[in-house]
Parts: sequence; C-alpha cells; structure tokens
Amino acid sequence: MITSSQNPKLKLVRALLGRPKERRETEAFVVEGVRLVEEAVKANWQFQFVLFSDGLGERGKELVKTLTANQIEVEETSGDLLQNLSETETPQGILAVLQLSNLPIPDSPNFVLIPDQIRDPGNLGTLLRTAAAAGAQAALLPPETTDAFAPKVLRAGMGTHFRLPIHSMTWDEIREQIKDLQIYLADMNGRSCWETDLHQPLALIIGSEAEGASEEARKLTAQKIAIPMPGNIESLNAGVAGSVLMFEVLRQSSLNTRDTKGH
Amino acid sequence: MITSSQNPKLKLVRALLGRPKERRETEAFVVEGVRLVEEAVKANWQFQFVLFSDGLGERGKELVKTLTANQIEVEETSGDLLQNLSETETPQGILAVLQLSNLPIPDSPNFVLIPDQIRDPGNLGTLLRTAAAAGAQAALLPPETTDAFAPKVLRAGMGTHFRLPIHSMTWDEIREQIKDLQIYLADMNGRSCWETDLHQPLALIIGSEAEGASEEARKLTAQKIAIPMPGNIESLNAGVAGSVLMFEVLRQSSLNTRDTKGH
Repeated sequence: MITSSQNPKLKLVRALLGRPKERRETEAFVVEGVRLVEEAVKANWQFQFVLFSDGLGERGKELVKTLTANQIEVEETSGDLLQNLSETETPQGILAVLQLSNLPIPDSPNFVLIPDQIRDPGNLGTLLRTAAAAGAQAALLPPETTDAFAPKVLRAGMGTHFRLPIHSMTWDEIREQIKDLQIYLADMNGRSCWETDLHQPLALIIGSEAEGASEEARKLTAQKIAIPMPGNIESLNAGVAGSVLMFEVLRQSSLNTRDTKGH
Repeated sequence: MITSSQNPKLKLVRALLGRPKERRETEAFVVEGVRLVEEAVKANWQFQFVLFSDGLGERGKELVKTLTANQIEVEETSGDLLQNLSETETPQGILAVLQLSNLPIPDSPNFVLIPDQIRDPGNLGTLLRTAAAAGAQAALLPPETTDAFAPKVLRAGMGTHFRLPIHSMTWDEIREQIKDLQIYLADMNGRSCWETDLHQPLALIIGSEAEGASEEARKLTAQKIAIPMPGNIESLNAGVAGSVLMFEVLRQSSLNTRDTKGH
C-alpha cells in the first residue's frame, strides 16, 4: 500500500498527468476512472501499472480482480493521495499508467481527420470520439494541436484512444500520409458541404474556432467546405462543426450508387 | 468604486452566479466577459448594471463608453473583488447583470429543440448555440434540464441566449406548445435520420448521454431517429448527436422540392 506522496509511482503519475514532454519521453500516459481502465483492458492495451484506493465501487473492484488475473501490476494507494492526483472532480479511485503507443494507420485509408490548431482539450476529445463513430480510420495531429494524451482529451474521448489510430506528425509527414487523398478544409467561406461530393477517399481538416486553419493546412487544401447556416450565429463550436462534417461524409458514402447534389 | 466584498451589488452577483433559484426570484442573470456583454448591447437587452475593473483591455474600455452612452449603470470595482467573483479562469474584468426575460416563441414555429435531462451545462450551451445556427426557432427546456442561464451555459452559448427564445416549461406546457408539430426523439435504436423525412414542422427531443430521454419525452414521441454509426463507439456526446441531427433537419429542409430517401 502506497502511503507517501514521495512514492516514485505517484511522482511518475503526477508528471505524466501534467506534462506532454514527460509523456513523450517516458512513452506513457495516464487514464483515470473505471470506464477508461475497462476500455484499455478490452483493447488489450499495454499496462505499466494500476493504482486504486478503497473508495472504489463494486464495478471497480471487479475490474481490479480482472487486472490481477491478467498479470497487471496493481497497487493499493491511500485514498487521499489518489484523490490529490486526480484531475477529475469526482475521482473514482482508480487510474492506470499505459504504454504510449500508436495503433497503425491502415494502408489505404479513405477517411482521415486532421484537427488543426485545436487547443481546447475538450474539443479535441470530442472530435476524436466523433471521428471514430463516423468511421474515420485515423486522426493526424499537426504540431500546433494540443496533445491527444492529455487527461482532458482522454476523458472527452471516452475510450476512442484505444480504437482510433491517433498520430502526432509534422506537416511534412502529414503531406506524405495523405498524398493520395482529396483534401477538404472546413471554412465558413467554403462551398456547401451538402453540394460537395464527399465520396472519394478524403482527408478533412478542422481548424480552431479562434484562429481558423494554419498556413500549412491552407497550402494543402484542394477545396473549402462550409456548413450552411441560416441562423445569425457567426460560427459553431469546432467540435460540433467537425462532427457535422464528418457525419456528412458518412452520409454521402452510405448513399452508394445514389448521386449527390451538384453532380 | 466598489472596494468592499460586502457591497450589495457584489452580493447580488455572487448569488445570481451560484443559484438558479436566485435567478428566478430576482429575474436576473449574469454574463461575464467583453464578448457576451457586447452581444447583450447589440441585442438591446435590458441591463440592470455593469461592473468592470481596471484590468479591462482596449475593446472592453470602448464597451464601457458605449454602455455609459446608452445610460446603463456602470460601476468600477476593485480588480481583486471582480476576479474573485468570476467563474472563468481568465476573467476579462467586466460583467453585466441582465433582466431575465424570454424572447417570444414565434406563432407557428416549424423547428423546435427540446433538450431533455441535459445536466451538463457545456452540452446544453452547445446544443442551444447549434440550434440557433441550424435555424431552430425556440428551445423548450423541461424541468429536468439544467438551468439555461447558469454561467457555464451562457459561456458555451456564446450569445445564443440573446437571439434564440429559450423557455423553461413543464411537460404540460411543452405538450401544448408543440401539439401541431411532428415529434422526433434521438434514440440509438431509432430509424436512420438519413432515411426519415424531416421536412415537416417538427420538434426534436435530445436526451442526455447518461440517462437517455425521460418517460414524458417518450410518451410524446411519434418517431425515434438515430445517427447511423459504423465505428464501434457506443454513443456520441449529447451535444454532438443533437447538432448532427439539427443540421440534418436543416439539410433536408434546404432540399425543397427534392425527394428524401425512403419516400
């Protein structure tokens, strides 16, 4: 049982929760709560260790049993210490330190999301979660976008991180990765997404609410697309705008043989 | 200049920020930040008073001039006191106490949003913002939904509150209000929204992520609709799901004479 805040495991968790650099160098990240730890088990993700406290509920206790049966290192920690570490308002008494590794990008992806300059972790998590739900096969994160393995992104992602390949890349790497795809950029001044053919293998770039898309994103872009809006609201939340566009891609691809508007 | 935390205006602001009951009884609410106060001015909203501190930037100082020119009561407040009141991490040194009044619901609305059991203020604000952008004419809030005039809902709404009629109602009042509308409920087990005719005047009910829709909502519902999802993610964020459906309503209504699928 861990009872000192100077315990090396606790120190590591603190560092991993707080600093992207630490996550990169240690090649590890932290997920909190029963649900996310369960998802990691289900995905067969590589664990370093798990900490839990006696505040854990029934479902959490079951989870600890499963972890132990799977030969994962599990250590009880004083409730106060674990609570102090926690990023959440209602900590559930369990967290896991996981291996930071990338799921592989499929060979010829036909739907890739590029969240560009998204600084808000909640928005990024929402975009990743929706991307997975809408059938995107990978998310490529340019350097300006916030770290996908930060605690708030993981929480908003609700387990997406264990299913969707999420890769941080330079713009050169992104350019190489999507060279065979049609590239669309969400832009208020673009063509209506409902009148644009979004059938082909494509990459969709979503810029930030405050700053829009980066220079690099604009250079790559073949076509700008917009969500038509009758209301006198100047913009949508970046998470929402990206989600509406991703499901429009899915809708069009589900039409199969039907013609889309504008063709 | 206000320099005491016991000042009656500060006490009122604290109470209004913290308690829905206080907002209802006083018929007032608080918006924070330059942008939201600007929106209130633009909408010709009724002000009670404005507090600002010397931390205010150029745009904020201009705003104070405009407010004064409009005969709105403006009072300087010590920066520390204002900062302590603030709900935001980066307070902008200005807040306004506004009259809690409802914009009128149009006579024969053809698109109404009903956020049902939405407890998360960020999700509610996002839904309201998207509703206005997608051309909904009113939002009707059942008793179980969080208060629309809470600080976090106002922030996520980004000024929507000054443009979209937002009414808290009992289920009886809601039933009466939407009696001429077709009623759809977002439900994972519903029919594909892409294969459902969403042309007619309609009300769209969005339940919460955790609890789904209430009994009352289910009783009212004529048809359940779902967003088809190929990804192995069990659900979407309620704000995202509602937004995708609202823009699908807008897309179909923009098709005019074109047939929708399934007809």
